[in-house]
Amino acid sequence: MLEAAAELIARDGIGGLRYDQVAELAEVNKTSVYRNWPDRNALIADALATFGADVAPLHDSGDIDADLVDFLEALAAATASPQGRALLTVVASARENPELRAVVDEVYERRLGTLDDRLKIAIERGELPPVETSFVAEMLAGPVQLFVTRGARTFTRADAARVTGVVLAGIRATHRT
Amino acid sequence: MLEAAAELIARDGIGGLRYDQVAELAEVNKTSVYRNWPDRNALIADALATFGADVAPLHDSGDIDADLVDFLEALAAATASPQGRALLTVVASARENPELRAVVDEVYERRLGTLDDRLKIAIERGELPPVETSFVAEMLAGPVQLFVTRGARTFTRADAARVTGVVLAGIRATHRT
Repeated sequence: MLEAAAELIARDGIGGLRYDQVAELAEVNKTSVYRNWPDRNALIADALATFGADVAPLHDSGDIDADLVDFLEALAAATASPQGRALLTVVASARENPELRAVVDEVYERRLGTLDDRLKIAIERGELPPVETSFVAEMLAGPVQLFVTRGARTFTRADAARVTGVVLAGIRATHRT
Repeated sequence: MLEAAAELIARDGIGGLRYDQVAELAEVNKTSVYRNWPDRNALIADALATFGADVAPLHDSGDIDADLVDFLEALAAATASPQGRALLTVVASARENPELRAVVDEVYERRLGTLDDRLKIAIERGELPPVETSFVAEMLAGPVQLFVTRGARTFTRADAARVTGVVLAGIRATHRT
């Protein structure tokens, strides 16, 4: 049911999410959906909740450049999934809705936490100059999101390497240790 | 009516756009909305159509770095407007709808055209190494979109300078003439 809800949000936005369509797509009775999620925002929140840090893990191989390329490749695949696209539609309309905003913030916080830990290690090791994690996150994830939502073609490993290369070279050139 | 439609799309997504709500918000009769836009996709398209290159002009002062900072600042303001946020919700759900996709593509093409012209001049002058315009567009606009949709705070001129600084330094370091 949560997968079905995510797919419908991705297609129609949150305003278009209807319980009867969730039931039809998930091949369950409409009353099952109502019983599990009497609150509409709770249904939206749960449909997005599993979409956290785990979808794009960030390893420590000792090479921050290579690890970020892996991360961006996984992030692009996750963003292109129905759940990822559902999250993007919710993000775009979450401003006016404090409950949804809390869900969106939580998903981003989890992902930012992973990136923050790994970047701090890289800074300690002298692989990167001191830099705000949230800024690096925007510089890396922003182009990936734009690329995936435009959807002209698949985001490849070469794209991940190119984005990472420009951002890290730019940060090294403009931020001093 | 188009402003009202854009506001409602920004709030609820395209699935939630209802003619009676457009009429109410625009303070017109519902039949006026139906008469002008018997086709729902045409209403969505027109609500976004004015949102093109004109909202974020790109001048030629002779200094590509400064001109791009101006451009990003204007782009952030435009993206934060109801029309800009409506565009983002439509982009996120345009994959499954060829008509909407055409509208979205047109808005992006117009904006990319402006950037393309200006970047080509900068490359000719040796201010930038040869680089694909669409890649630069993603690197600059991606972080702005992510920043604005998260909506934690306003995107300032200092933010525009920081993003432009990292992207251009990164491109100069990784692309050779």
